[in-house]
Formats: sequence, structure tokens, C-alpha cells
Amino acid sequence: MTNPTSSRRTGGRAARHAKRAVPVAVNPAAPGQVGGQYRPLTDADCKAIYDTALRLLSDLGMGEVPMRLWNDLISAGCTDLRKGRIGMPRALVEDILDKAAKVFPLHGRDPNRTIEVGGDKVYFGTGGAAVNTLDRETGLYRPSTLQDLHDFTRLQDALDNVAWFTRCCIATDVPDMHDLDVNTAYALMRGTTKPVATAFTIAEHVDPIVHLFDIAAGGEGEFSKRPFVKTHISPVISPMRFGEDAVEVVYKCIEHNIPMSCITAAQAGATAPATLAGFLAQSLAETLASLVMVNVISPGFPMVFSNWPLVIDLRSGAFAGGGGETTVLNAASAQLSNWLGLPSGVAASMTDAKALDAQYGVEKGMTSLAAALAGGNLIYESSGMTAALLGASFEAFVLDDEMHAMTYRALRGIEVSDENLGFDAICASILGDGHFLGSEHTYAAMERDYHYPSLADREQPKTWADGGAQSAADRAKQRVDDILNTHNPAHLSAKQDAEIRAVFNIID
Amino acid sequence: MTNPTSSRRTGGRAARHAKRAVPVAVNPAAPGQVGGQYRPLTDADCKAIYDTALRLLSDLGMGEVPMRLWNDLISAGCTDLRKGRIGMPRALVEDILDKAAKVFPLHGRDPNRTIEVGGDKVYFGTGGAAVNTLDRETGLYRPSTLQDLHDFTRLQDALDNVAWFTRCCIATDVPDMHDLDVNTAYALMRGTTKPVATAFTIAEHVDPIVHLFDIAAGGEGEFSKRPFVKTHISPVISPMRFGEDAVEVVYKCIEHNIPMSCITAAQAGATAPATLAGFLAQSLAETLASLVMVNVISPGFPMVFSNWPLVIDLRSGAFAGGGGETTVLNAASAQLSNWLGLPSGVAASMTDAKALDAQYGVEKGMTSLAAALAGGNLIYESSGMTAALLGASFEAFVLDDEMHAMTYRALRGIEVSDENLGFDAICASILGDGHFLGSEHTYAAMERDYHYPSLADREQPKTWADGGAQSAADRAKQRVDDILNTHNPAHLSAKQDAEIRAVFNIID
Repeated sequence: MTNPTSSRRTGGRAARHAKRAVPVAVNPAAPGQVGGQYRPLTDADCKAIYDTALRLLSDLGMGEVPMRLWNDLISAGCTDLRKGRIGMPRALVEDILDKAAKVFPLHGRDPNRTIEVGGDKVYFGTGGAAVNTLDRETGLYRPSTLQDLHDFTRLQDALDNVAWFTRCCIATDVPDMHDLDVNTAYALMRGTTKPVATAFTIAEHVDPIVHLFDIAAGGEGEFSKRPFVKTHISPVISPMRFGEDAVEVVYKCIEHNIPMSCITAAQAGATAPATLAGFLAQSLAETLASLVMVNVISPGFPMVFSNWPLVIDLRSGAFAGGGGETTVLNAASAQLSNWLGLPSGVAASMTDAKALDAQYGVEKGMTSLAAALAGGNLIYESSGMTAALLGASFEAFVLDDEMHAMTYRALRGIEVSDENLGFDAICASILGDGHFLGSEHTYAAMERDYHYPSLADREQPKTWADGGAQSAADRAKQRVDDILNTHNPAHLSAKQDAEIRAVFNIID
Repeated sequence: MTNPTSSRRTGGRAARHAKRAVPVAVNPAAPGQVGGQYRPLTDADCKAIYDTALRLLSDLGMGEVPMRLWNDLISAGCTDLRKGRIGMPRALVEDILDKAAKVFPLHGRDPNRTIEVGGDKVYFGTGGAAVNTLDRETGLYRPSTLQDLHDFTRLQDALDNVAWFTRCCIATDVPDMHDLDVNTAYALMRGTTKPVATAFTIAEHVDPIVHLFDIAAGGEGEFSKRPFVKTHISPVISPMRFGEDAVEVVYKCIEHNIPMSCITAAQAGATAPATLAGFLAQSLAETLASLVMVNVISPGFPMVFSNWPLVIDLRSGAFAGGGGETTVLNAASAQLSNWLGLPSGVAASMTDAKALDAQYGVEKGMTSLAAALAGGNLIYESSGMTAALLGASFEAFVLDDEMHAMTYRALRGIEVSDENLGFDAICASILGDGHFLGSEHTYAAMERDYHYPSLADREQPKTWADGGAQSAADRAKQRVDDILNTHNPAHLSAKQDAEIRAVFNIID
């Protein structure tokens, strides 16, 4: 019995209590845990899917290539396959895979909130462009507004487990596209200092909005030096063709050094094969086409390899965000991207549920855990989304924040060391008190190794009933109200705010 | 383009529709999928935990060993460690690991419902001994009754994804222990022909209840020839000691050829270390102690290696069934048991939630998926349980049944073959119609590869609102009412029923 805890125990009860009173410095379930423990595909599977993707790129090629991109691709060694399709030879793709950015920062305006994308770290964040918001008072959906976007932004600013914030809803009360893009960007700057993301409807919006970001960054040209916004963009439209507007935005974003999440959003059985393997082969090819494009324009430019396999319910043709197929497909996508060494973006937590109910929980819990265990570097759509991405919900944001902590805790796994195995501590407890309550070994683990939820109910049935038999959604609503009533961050100075308003049509 | 589907397409629209009308023969998400894709522990971790468990068994040993078992163990080569503790030498444990039953059937009275335990197949089933039932009318908990047990039994009889049924609740309105065990056994015989499981309070109850099983099996001695009941038992009480009553039941069950699930139910930080690695080492040692006991009494006797790591909330000392620690611990336990080649039993879906809410879904979804992906052969507690095993719920049974189908679908994974990769089919669709809707390749996958939920809502927000904005629990209640109003199986003949009633105090 040489366990060092034995000597510490001589400090007695008072010393243990003093020890226990020290504030906890460590987060037992911090964002950025390491993934990859779940591998739905074998190495041979990965290779077969990758080989098929390369054949698709070289032999079938990409259609509808805008002229500027066509010329750049041909100059880089792509081949004219006739009938408007361009082939990407295997050697070119593999060369670009070698040179592509593998790890890069997503800057927060607050540098303490910067995260590193790539490698084996896993982060949950948002995506989405919900047109409906789940109203906290009626429990029903209504069109999302600019006020909702401001409220969502400052709400998530207070949530530790949302690592970056993409505008989660569309301000449907702002009909002008330029005003929409500008006011969306403004909401992100005002409401949070985390890394943020937005979309640019057309390339012409990029220059003015970068000016807005420069004001937030402290002066002209400052934003591009340390960009704290990435863009979400789908330059490839399934199946296997480019989208002209988006490609123009890509050129503009590269000009301004704005990192991109190039998202392939194929739908199984509609714009991609219904077979899961075929789907992955095509969507891998499509995301590789984005990677080739970006790296031909600017070698090594930071791009998140966002291969999001989306499922539709083939009975109705409607997009379905829950389900076992979505669970395994996004996990497999993360595995494939990581296998290629690329920074992987996948989607999870896109439940089909409208209510904040058992279906909501099951679909979110399963898809999030699978994506995380498979090592998705950035797990999009994972906070606040409902109704198969048609809805966003305030209560969902705080519920999901706690779910992410559970997932991070699971992902962290089990540290096997002599100290943790604790042979001596086990013998001492069993031959001593006969239990482990209150031992030094237990105290040491209590805050270091366990996540204690604050929204999840762990009371006895009677206590729960006496407290009003609340649901998780009831408790979440209270939490949302508390945060929105108190968390009003001013992440733009009065001077910056005035400067922005002098130039842009900011809608209050 | 040599894809055979090309020629089939010449059959035209009518032929395709005819093909589509053929009844579906295949279940896209059948029970018994293959697990093991998620490995929370490295091989070195497994070995370190196993080595520590062996050291605990040999050096610390087991306490409170009943005399009969003590003598049997000493005869088999165990060592007297003094002070009442018995050591199990490494060589003995390893010899027993070699000879222990690795794969065996859990018989259903209906042979079509028999499942095979062990290897890499995963099945969800029940466990539990809830003392509360979630009342369908009040939405609150009340004491569980014998009528509840009958209703739960016939409800799950209609659910495809509950592979076996352990009595999920305790009939708290039957105070006499003998009557309770008898009437529990009777409910199982009357309500289902799946493999079932129960517990025997004391050894004296085994003989009479086997007589009841013999009547159901068709005559004296018939049950033991093909036992369709396994017993749930905890012969080891954490930390590291035997329980006298349970050990006596073990001897009796072996006498009657009743397979056993020997359950270690240590609690982290109370009856086992709070460190996850130390916990697994001790609980592995304890479950191995059960294995040694069973195999010393009867070499090769069928035993499910049920190492269920349970977590308590160290703030309150109460058992907590959800959470990231439970998720990873039960997955790791499954991995360890499988690594030893033993039939693994773990626990999942033991949510702390009282309501059928988002917490319920997240905790069930995460723990179930992790246990399945890690390859748990029998995943206990996974249907119908709520409130950290204090509650059982009818609605939960049907909700969980659908969750299991999602999990099985995810577990099934992605079949990567030339046909599924579908290079030619992709080229044909893209160069043809420009999409995949309605192609032969899509039709072939539509029912074969996709699970379509019947309870999960996939409608648009407006359709959902127009339909009454129902929650999953609302829909589940309707399903439960439908089943209980129509599914009244008579799994005992009138003659068998009368014969049982002539001998036993059957309470109606």
C-alpha cells in the first residue's frame, strides 16, 4: 500500500473539506475533446469510396463550370471532357490533398475564444438558416425575425459548448438581400465575440460587409489580418456541378482572406445515390471538387471540408434530419475526411421533431454522439435547430448546450493510468471503511472526472412531481428567460456602432 | 456503362411500379446487428484493466463467501487469504475464461423468437425492477402493480425490437414474496413467447416456479431441456464480496439448467472507485468472480457476463442513469467483455428523466447508441425504463422500440460494394435525368437500406401545428392504447392456466 493518497489522508476531515472548497479549475467535459474512437468504415471501405470518388472526378467530371473557374482549372491541369464537363485527374487531386490546409484557426474576436480546426479535435457549433422560430410563448412556429437573430446571438454568447456561431436563422422580415446580409453581419458583431460564420448571397455583398467587419476589427484592412468570420458556402451543387453565384463568392472570400466552409449538401436518392456507399462516393467527389477549386485559386487556403450527407424520406421526398441513416452517414463522412487528413465538417442534431420532446432528444443525442465519436472536427447544425433545419428554438440552444457537455464527457473517454486504476486505493477502501465515499481517491475524481448537469433532472419521482412535474423544455425556457433578461453584451463600442450606422442601413 | 440496372430500366414505368408493389421482405434495421465499431479503450487499456482485475482477485480476493461456495472454490484451487477472504489465482481465472460458455441460445417459447447471445451480435431488451409506473392518465408516477406487469408484458410482446423481456416492474401490490415471484413468473408465461427473465428472491422459490415453467413447457422436466427463462442475479455485492442468498439461488438455477445473467452493479464513488479506470478494474474483477463461481460449480454453464458500471451523482449520492460517464463506461464494459470473448451484458437507456421529454431522449439515445456500437451483446434496461430505473412507462416502451430500430440501422453501417458504390449508376443518372429520383438503383435501396419511423414526426411545422402540435409522448400514448386494446395474447392454454391455478395462488 504505497498510494500517496494514504499520507494525504492524515490531514483529516478538516483538511479534506478545505481541499474540497477550492474552486474547480478544470472543466471535466471541455470542448475540443479528441474523437475517432468510432470507425463505421474499414480502411478498405475508405479506399474503395475514395477510389470511386476519384474516378467520378476524372471520368465524369464536373458540369456547369463558370468561365473564370474553367480557365483556372484547365491551367492547373484539369481536362476538357466535352459537353461542358471538366475532369479533375487523380494526380492533380492527390497533389492538392497533399498541399491543402490541414489545421488552421477559427479566430474569435476575443482571442480566448479562438478554436483550432482539424487534427483530431471535436467542436460543436451552429449552422442553419431556419426560416421559422419556435415561439417561447405559443409553443408553435412563426417566421424568424431579425430580433430573433439578435436574441439567438446573445443567448449562445453565454453558452460554453457552442464553439462558434453561424447565423442560425434568416431574418425573414428583412426582404432586401443586401440589407439582410448586412444586418445579419451586424447582429453577429454586436452579439458575440466567438468565431462566427455567415453566408453572402452574392459576391457584390462581400466588399461592403468586409468594411463592416473592419470597423469591428478596429480599422481598414484589420479584419483580413485575423479573420474572425468564416463563410458557409456551397460552390458545388449536387449532382456534380458548380453553382455560378457561389463560385463568385469564393473568389471574393479568398481575396479578403475569409476562411470557407465549403458545404456539399447532397440528398440521398434525389441528388445523390440512395445507396449509402454510392452517396458517400459522390459527395466525397463533390467536396473534393470544392477543395480543388479553392486550392487552384489559392494554394493552401483555409477550407473546412464540409461533406454533409443529407437524407430525404423517400416516401415523401422531404429532407429528414434524424434517423439511423443520418447517424451513420455523417459519422462515416467525418471518418473519411479525417482519413484524408482534412479538417472535417459534418452535420448533426438536425432533428425532425417540432416539439422539444423525446423524438427531439433521441435524434439529437444519437446523431451528435456518432459524429463526435467519429471525430468530426466541426459539427454543424448542432445547437438550437429543430424541424429538419426549418426551425430554430431558444430552449433548444440551452438544452443542446448541456447535451454537448455530455457528449464531450463521453468523448473524453477513460484515462487508464496506475493512479486511476488505483489498485492500492481499492484495497485500502475495501479493507478500511468498506466503501469509497469520502476517500481522497474519490474526492480527486469528483470534479475532475464527472460532469454535473444543471438542466437535466436527477430527482426522485416524488420530488419531481412536488416541483410541478416540469419537462426539460420547461426548465430550458426558464434558463433562456434568465439569460436573455440579463445577458446584453456590448461587443461593439458606441463609436464602432455609430460608424457602422453611418454607412449601413442597420434595422432596429 | 455496363450496369445491369440499365437493361432492367427498359421494363418501363409499369414494370417499376409493379416491382415497387411487392411486399417488403427485408427489415432494414433488424435486431442482432453486428457491433464493435466503437472502441473507447485501446488494447493496452484493456490489458491494464484486466491485469488490475486479476491482481484484485488474487491478492485482495473476495469476502463473505458462503461455506458451500468457499469449499467448492478451495477445491478448485482458490486460496485462503485469511480474515475470511478467498483469492482467485490468475491461472485459475484464465483457465475458466478459456472454458466458459462463449455463445449460447436464449430460447423463446416460440422458437422463432430465440436469440443467440455472444459473438458480435447486439440485442436490446429489458431489465429493471421499477417500483413506480408512469400513469398514462395523470402523467405522474404511482406504485407499480401486478396489472401493470401483465400490461407491460403483453405490450412488449407486440414490439419487434425488444429481444427479450425481463419483468420490468415490481408488483408492489403483492406483498408476499412467494406470491410475488410466482405471479411475476405467471405474467411472463401468459403475456409473451419471447425469451424472458426474472429474479428469484430466495432459493426456496426456484423449485416451485420451475414447476410452473414445466406446465408452460408441456410437462415435468420439459423446461430444463430447453429453458426459455434466464435469471437475473447479483451473486457478487460490491465491493468484492459474495451475497449469501443470491449464491444459493445460483446453485439452484444451475441445478435446473436456468441460464444466468450475473450482474455486477457497482456504483462509482460508493461501492467502487470514482475513477473510471479503477471502477472498471474492480467491476471486471467482480464479474469475473461470478464467472469463476459459476464455472467451478458447473464448467461451461451459460452465463451472461453482465458488468454494468453504474454512476451515482456524487453531489447527492443518488444513482444517475444518464450522462456522459454512463455512456462511456457501459461501452467500455461491453468492449472489455467482448475482448475477453465473453457474452457481454451492459445497461443503457436508464434515463434520469421523469417526463418523456428532451432529456429522456438525449440520455436514452446516447447511452443506447454507445452500448450498441461498442458491441454489447445484450443491452439491458433499454426499453420502457425512466427515472433512473425507479420508473417504467408504457409510452416509453413504444418510443424506445422505435429508437432501437434507429440504433440498429446505424449499427448496420454502410455496405461498400461495387454495386452499392454504383459508379455506372451515378454516371447514368447524372448524364440522363440529372437526378436519382425513381431510378432502379434508388428503388432497390429504398426499402432495403432505409428505416421509416412510424412514431417520429417528419412533417412540416405547419402540418404538425394543424395536427394538434403533438409531442412524441402524445403519439406514443395513442399507440399504447391501440396495442393494449387489441393485443391480448393467450400464451397459456386454458388447460395450462387451470393447472397452474390449481397449484399456485394466482392473483387476478
